[in-house]
Amino acid sequence: MPYQVYDTTLRDGAQREGISYSVVDKLGVARLLDEFGVGFIEGGWPGAMPKDTEFFKRARKELDLKHAQLVAFGATRKAGVAVNEDPQVRALLDAETPAVCLVAKSDIRHVERALRTTGAENLAMVRDTVAHFVANDRRVFLDCEHFFDGFRHDPAYTASVVQAALEAGAEVVVMCDTNGGMLPSRITAAITDLTGRLGIDANRLGIHCQNDTSCAVANTVAAVEAGVEHFQCTANGYGERPGNADLFAVVANLQLKLGLPVLPDGCLEQAMRVSHSIAEIANIAPDTHQAYVGAAAFAHKAGLHASAIKVDPLLYNHVEPSVVGNDMRILVTEMAGRASIELKSRELGIDLAGHPAELSRVTQRVKDLEAGGWSFEAADASFELLVRGELGEVTRPFALESYRVLVEHREDGAVVSEATAKVRVRGERVIATAEGNGPINALDEALRLALSKHYPELTSFVLADYKVRILEGSHGSGAVTRVLVETNDGRGRDFTTVGVHENVVEASWHALVDALTYGLDREPAVS
Amino acid sequence: MPYQVYDTTLRDGAQREGISYSVVDKLGVARLLDEFGVGFIEGGWPGAMPKDTEFFKRARKELDLKHAQLVAFGATRKAGVAVNEDPQVRALLDAETPAVCLVAKSDIRHVERALRTTGAENLAMVRDTVAHFVANDRRVFLDCEHFFDGFRHDPAYTASVVQAALEAGAEVVVMCDTNGGMLPSRITAAITDLTGRLGIDANRLGIHCQNDTSCAVANTVAAVEAGVEHFQCTANGYGERPGNADLFAVVANLQLKLGLPVLPDGCLEQAMRVSHSIAEIANIAPDTHQAYVGAAAFAHKAGLHASAIKVDPLLYNHVEPSVVGNDMRILVTEMAGRASIELKSRELGIDLAGHPAELSRVTQRVKDLEAGGWSFEAADASFELLVRGELGEVTRPFALESYRVLVEHREDGAVVSEATAKVRVRGERVIATAEGNGPINALDEALRLALSKHYPELTSFVLADYKVRILEGSHGSGAVTRVLVETNDGRGRDFTTVGVHENVVEASWHALVDALTYGLDREPAVS
Repeated sequence: MPYQVYDTTLRDGAQREGISYSVVDKLGVARLLDEFGVGFIEGGWPGAMPKDTEFFKRARKELDLKHAQLVAFGATRKAGVAVNEDPQVRALLDAETPAVCLVAKSDIRHVERALRTTGAENLAMVRDTVAHFVANDRRVFLDCEHFFDGFRHDPAYTASVVQAALEAGAEVVVMCDTNGGMLPSRITAAITDLTGRLGIDANRLGIHCQNDTSCAVANTVAAVEAGVEHFQCTANGYGERPGNADLFAVVANLQLKLGLPVLPDGCLEQAMRVSHSIAEIANIAPDTHQAYVGAAAFAHKAGLHASAIKVDPLLYNHVEPSVVGNDMRILVTEMAGRASIELKSRELGIDLAGHPAELSRVTQRVKDLEAGGWSFEAADASFELLVRGELGEVTRPFALESYRVLVEHREDGAVVSEATAKVRVRGERVIATAEGNGPINALDEALRLALSKHYPELTSFVLADYKVRILEGSHGSGAVTRVLVETNDGRGRDFTTVGVHENVVEASWHALVDALTYGLDREPAVS
Repeated sequence: MPYQVYDTTLRDGAQREGISYSVVDKLGVARLLDEFGVGFIEGGWPGAMPKDTEFFKRARKELDLKHAQLVAFGATRKAGVAVNEDPQVRALLDAETPAVCLVAKSDIRHVERALRTTGAENLAMVRDTVAHFVANDRRVFLDCEHFFDGFRHDPAYTASVVQAALEAGAEVVVMCDTNGGMLPSRITAAITDLTGRLGIDANRLGIHCQNDTSCAVANTVAAVEAGVEHFQCTANGYGERPGNADLFAVVANLQLKLGLPVLPDGCLEQAMRVSHSIAEIANIAPDTHQAYVGAAAFAHKAGLHASAIKVDPLLYNHVEPSVVGNDMRILVTEMAGRASIELKSRELGIDLAGHPAELSRVTQRVKDLEAGGWSFEAADASFELLVRGELGEVTRPFALESYRVLVEHREDGAVVSEATAKVRVRGERVIATAEGNGPINALDEALRLALSKHYPELTSFVLADYKVRILEGSHGSGAVTRVLVETNDGRGRDFTTVGVHENVVEASWHALVDALTYGLDREPAVS
């Protein structure tokens, strides 16, 4: 296929506020991108960043890529320096990648004011550096930084940079909207102008968009519609300022809306998994509302829609969610009412259609809890316990008598957390005390210790994630704390539970108890 | 001006997962939207939602709008029911708004399968309902639900719905991309086709886009470029699934990129404030990476850029940040180095240019702390303390000896939190104990009680926001907790401090101590 899906998550995407990848992180992201079927993975800037030099070294040994080629990023040679004496150019060759991507200034103002050299020397830098890498058997891509601003300010100069790179042997010259101010119609007009001026096909050009007008995805799609076949994106749109064009939305739009075969077969279905796994490595909460791959991308809340969806789900989704590895979800909220609760329960394998009284009770209970700050939108396990509790199907494994949690910062600077839980398990009163690296962890440990005799399977449970949200008292009540706990049962199953209380420890307690109850309820009894 | 900036934050935007406005919230959002200069505020669906009925009742008395007209949303009459006997139509009239927006089915499949009526009856419903409101002196907008899907499936039928509404007196007929699957080029093509078919000007049409392809803003802009003058958006793009077209990005693009006068003078500058205030009412953390109004929209992180920005800031921003009420920010991160730290310090009023040794020490200390999970990107006050600490300018108001925090869930179900802090203040050893509604609150109270004799001004300090993030141990270390504390000093000044530790209480302690130190350092000494 002619399309070059070029990912720069590991280089330009790493500019996003808050991201800091280790070398192991970068190797993990590269593996995921390859599974998604991208053609090129820009791994970093060897020489400029020690971590990136190390990445390319390890990548050669450790990465076994099925679809992608690795690309090392660097700059054209310094002004006034011979290309083979430029250490940055040397480091780029030493990365030993099949392809390199060189960034060049293409706005005469940046050449003169930031680079402090002449337009002619900048053109020589482009020619020399491209030719040098071509002579060293590299595929060469050239990123024209500030292309669109430059092309608007001085079209002749910016076009001459593109021409110099192509003449020197660059495979593709990439138009970068570095400051991100473009709109789709202007992308189309610039491509028409540039290709006419130089007498070239648009397939010699690439596109790289930042999202400062909230149009990065649309701008990228517009460029491809205008004949560009090389497009640079980042996973989840990570990048500086509002970010880059989101790889998943661009690829899904091209493949599902325009019918262009940009990924190998079977790859698009990995979109949601790859998106969320990369978010996890980047340590950024996945964006629930992200197009195609967000947890809410196919979530329906309105009572109006929820009832109509029962008639014909495909009339309410722009694509079949499974083609990007996503699912349709029905949200449990006060606006939805009985129809949504029934649908949501069915999604969890519980048929409430034949139980109108229970359905009414669950609906009322959800409304009451939501009025107090609870939310089941992200806590399917707590919702399932609630529904099955109303149906009389849940056995509570223990009853709480009391707990106590203590955190001390001692005079010697040591910080210790200790919790004691007193519970009744199968008729027996158990008291257990445990330490933890924080109050919630100590409480979790104490509770599991108290239950361990009767429920040894709990030892395999792991608290996988823990989220805290303070809900402001904007709805008439005081501030409350909402805790979401994600538990892994040690057998590959994850589930999320929720707790709400003005006290974070008590809120966490509720979520922990739901997690253990849900997990045990699904396990075969041992003792 | 001909443009109709139509906001539906309070109706369609309220479909977003997690949003639930009270009537007071809705009144507050309406005031903010009016300050931003929108022409129409769609307030809700009276009759269908009791809260919305109440909203319109109170809005008539309590809202004094400068720019906007209120719009009540509703549906065309029910199939087989006379329009003046339809209670939903009645409720819509009773809202007594100058304008109404009626939703109609315009995809024949939805007419037949979801509405379960005929195409002819649906047209009659449109004609009857529009005519009824026109006869009652209302401006009438008609939302064609699923317009684009319908127009693609059966263009003649969908066009006949538009025609029926216009003939019956609708001012504007709105093309809704309800399922959100459109791209800009297809929006343009559909408008050309429809206006040609009906022989109408595009200014009789409106646009309403959902963001399922990540193109809602671009689609809206494309429609305006094609002659549409009425566009429906929501603040921050809130809405079902991936949301709606973001009001702020659409308006900024139209005004700043296309030069169209869509807002009254002086309003665009309110964008950031209005965006963040609405986020606060909606109780959703503002999106740092939102175009134009996000805190990171003009934030520069890369060392490369940070040094060049000193030369010429405007070459690195696609618009001047102040035109949307935003600021350029320099981020303090490991990737940035000395240049960024120097710029950031200057932003905070500290000149490090003449102190190279201190600049090196601060840079090293930031790098070390960031390696341990600290982040100063959102905590300017902690960063300032760190820099001024290195310059020897910070006086620590007290020293900690030890603290102890206890949370108990007692047998009677009561949950209590208690903290004791032992500190040295100006040579005196003070022990104070306080209760709180949670462990952090108790610790905060105990610390302030201990300091209150020497620093009575602390009584006006309020803990305004408290955020907790668990950082996974993906960078070789164990999981740590990062706490951000926002403090208001009771004199209109807010500042944010950060603490990081594996124990949430200790992390909070660090952030609290920084908050009090920073706040006191800026106050005139009292005792």
